[in-house]
Amino acid sequence: MLTNGPIGVFDSGIGGLTVFGSIAKLLPQYDYVYLGDNKRSPYGDRTFNTIHEYTWECVQWLFKQGCPLVILACNTASAKALRTIQQKDLKDDYADRRVLGVIRPTAEVIGDYSSSKKIGVLGTAGTVQSGSYKLEINKFFPDLKVYQQACPLWVPLIENGEYNKPGSDYFVRLYLDELMAQSPDIDTLLLACTHYPLLQDRIQAALPQHIKVVGQGEIVAHSLADYLQRHPEMETKITRGGTRNFFTTTDDTEQFDKTASIFFPDAVKAGFVNVEG
Amino acid sequence: MLTNGPIGVFDSGIGGLTVFGSIAKLLPQYDYVYLGDNKRSPYGDRTFNTIHEYTWECVQWLFKQGCPLVILACNTASAKALRTIQQKDLKDDYADRRVLGVIRPTAEVIGDYSSSKKIGVLGTAGTVQSGSYKLEINKFFPDLKVYQQACPLWVPLIENGEYNKPGSDYFVRLYLDELMAQSPDIDTLLLACTHYPLLQDRIQAALPQHIKVVGQGEIVAHSLADYLQRHPEMETKITRGGTRNFFTTTDDTEQFDKTASIFFPDAVKAGFVNVEG
Repeated sequence: MLTNGPIGVFDSGIGGLTVFGSIAKLLPQYDYVYLGDNKRSPYGDRTFNTIHEYTWECVQWLFKQGCPLVILACNTASAKALRTIQQKDLKDDYADRRVLGVIRPTAEVIGDYSSSKKIGVLGTAGTVQSGSYKLEINKFFPDLKVYQQACPLWVPLIENGEYNKPGSDYFVRLYLDELMAQSPDIDTLLLACTHYPLLQDRIQAALPQHIKVVGQGEIVAHSLADYLQRHPEMETKITRGGTRNFFTTTDDTEQFDKTASIFFPDAVKAGFVNVEG
Repeated sequence: MLTNGPIGVFDSGIGGLTVFGSIAKLLPQYDYVYLGDNKRSPYGDRTFNTIHEYTWECVQWLFKQGCPLVILACNTASAKALRTIQQKDLKDDYADRRVLGVIRPTAEVIGDYSSSKKIGVLGTAGTVQSGSYKLEINKFFPDLKVYQQACPLWVPLIENGEYNKPGSDYFVRLYLDELMAQSPDIDTLLLACTHYPLLQDRIQAALPQHIKVVGQGEIVAHSLADYLQRHPEMETKITRGGTRNFFTTTDDTEQFDKTASIFFPDAVKAGFVNVEG
């Protein structure tokens, strides 16, 4: 199996393209392969077992494309599958590969944004139920109070193109009110789902100006740059051609390309792959 | 393999429980097994190939439970998988079994509801794109004009408990306006998705009173009763114990039971099954 190759970027669907956009902008020199498991998305409500099974199949497919390093650009997969992959799956068969998520890099810095030391985390039901953000953030910022809020309708609103239309206002307000009712002193909101940056303007407009709304793309990109600097043995395995290839597990690649245009600045033309079995 | 047994009722998730409720009410004497493929739901946006693959796996699992007859209580599966199952899969291996959908029984009678001979069909993106309703209805009512409208946010709204709250009004109105803009003379709306009966009151309230809003549950139940009368060779294979067993492909059966309570009058306690491979 190839050991040198592109950086793999995985998401359950297309939301990870917001993170990939930030990574590719900051580190344009590397080759990249993006894989979206659209056949089986969304992951948000699925169980630990299912999310691990699906994510690991996709990661193995990226390894077979030669990726020495895979980024899970998906909060649900980072919350529910990453630990098992890092602690068990990689050790068993892929000791020289690395898989990184989006939660830890975000947790490492999010506390620096807050003066009140009270922050809100907005995510899918699965991400919130996992409690991963609270746990990881408190490792780095033990005194920070972390309030969580599930926003289950935001992904369907965004994927159906309603994120910049008035019908989304009710649901932006609904979940923000529920979050702020937990503590009026929250001064920082983390968008802990890769889709949510598309609602960022409406979220900010619905809040007092002093509350900061923070997306993950740039945080994850800078964390990756830092990781590669600290790990030259990994950095030298990553090929440098500036290519970007996109794959999806759905055979409706046209739909993928069309929806991708909401999330990614460049035109996308995805290939269809089967990662199962 | 068992050849006598319960009636199998399949849906991609829990929406099919609205149809099952009507069937079990009209024909309480039979045994039933309900299977929801919640691990892989929703099917609405998936492709023909994927929907056929998933549906056929579930149908075979129901056959293994002894079901001589399976109802696809799912519009997406009926639109995209039923034909291949009836014309190819059953002939290859299960010539004595029958699989019926929800589209044909609805198509056989829906024209009788309309005076203007213009009806609207509301469904998921997948059901609408398949064109199955238009095709089937025009077989029985060649002069009927059929207008279609995809309502992609209604299922997420319903599954997240927003169907009886004000946030759903905007999206009820949005899709109804788009449908009625196609023809102001539409006098009958078919709810061609098993979830939609939960929005029926709000849909009716948003429309002029003379427009009829028709669900599928009772239509499908009466069609099944009629089918069993016309096919005594099938009817005698169906066991009569009045039992109802529920299974789901997700290992979070508690969530299934909880959401099922929105769709089904009786308490549900589902078992977890793996139908894959």
